[in-house]
Amino acid sequence: MRLTTYTDYGLRLLMYVVLKDGELATIQEVADAYGISKNHLMKVAHNLGLYGYLDTVRGRGGGLRLARAPGRIVLGDVIRRMEDDFVMAECFEPAGNACCITRACRLKGILAEALKAYFAVLDNYTLADLAGNNAVLTKLLSPA
Amino acid sequence: MRLTTYTDYGLRLLMYVVLKDGELATIQEVADAYGISKNHLMKVAHNLGLYGYLDTVRGRGGGLRLARAPGRIVLGDVIRRMEDDFVMAECFEPAGNACCITRACRLKGILAEALKAYFAVLDNYTLADLAGNNAVLTKLLSPA
Repeated sequence: MRLTTYTDYGLRLLMYVVLKDGELATIQEVADAYGISKNHLMKVAHNLGLYGYLDTVRGRGGGLRLARAPGRIVLGDVIRRMEDDFVMAECFEPAGNACCITRACRLKGILAEALKAYFAVLDNYTLADLAGNNAVLTKLLSPA
Repeated sequence: MRLTTYTDYGLRLLMYVVLKDGELATIQEVADAYGISKNHLMKVAHNLGLYGYLDTVRGRGGGLRLARAPGRIVLGDVIRRMEDDFVMAECFEPAGNACCITRACRLKGILAEALKAYFAVLDNYTLADLAGNNAVLTKLLSPA
């Protein structure tokens, strides 16, 4: 059930950028604020750009900012894009599925229904709900 | 999001035992029917006994049977017991959590809410829903 580190870092990065409130954020300061790998964050930031969540301003004084309002970045969408797959069991993988009861098994449908309920909750929240109006979060992420 | 092989095998074993409809099932025949490891199944069967889902009849002609009616074995309960943990991100692990924003982060609560919705679906189903009245499943698991 665990989110990948890639998704986890992606969400942390997005929250950080929201809290900057339009000011540019650098990968270095995000890495420093959370104490996490700058290299990992670079890949994450690059892909968040491709997904349309972040804009990069290049050159000296450059950095990252949100590509749209935080209220328009839905948590379920971010997690769907960032996670590798939503394989709940062998039968969700057509290629590697050797389970002989797949044709008659009702478990797959039930697991798919549970996954849908999981995402229905995540689709109720946006980045604004996560990071907006969160003074304690801002303080925790400010340079000492 | 993937269930462990241990849980997967546990659910397959329980479905098999339901389809025997009171007749004893042996680990060997379950392993043969699914084409999976007998050694893994032995551990799984042992633990399903400890959880109160299976009874073991020892000796020659012995085997496994359900310890209660399939309609009283709730899918969500089985999965809760069989999965190692429900750690969705670093902050769910008090021991290994180094994330500096844990105190103010709203993500943990949202992920916990999504997990709750996931289990609410699984709690709607019992083993009787999975394997009861499933002629195709019975046929697929019968010896050739």
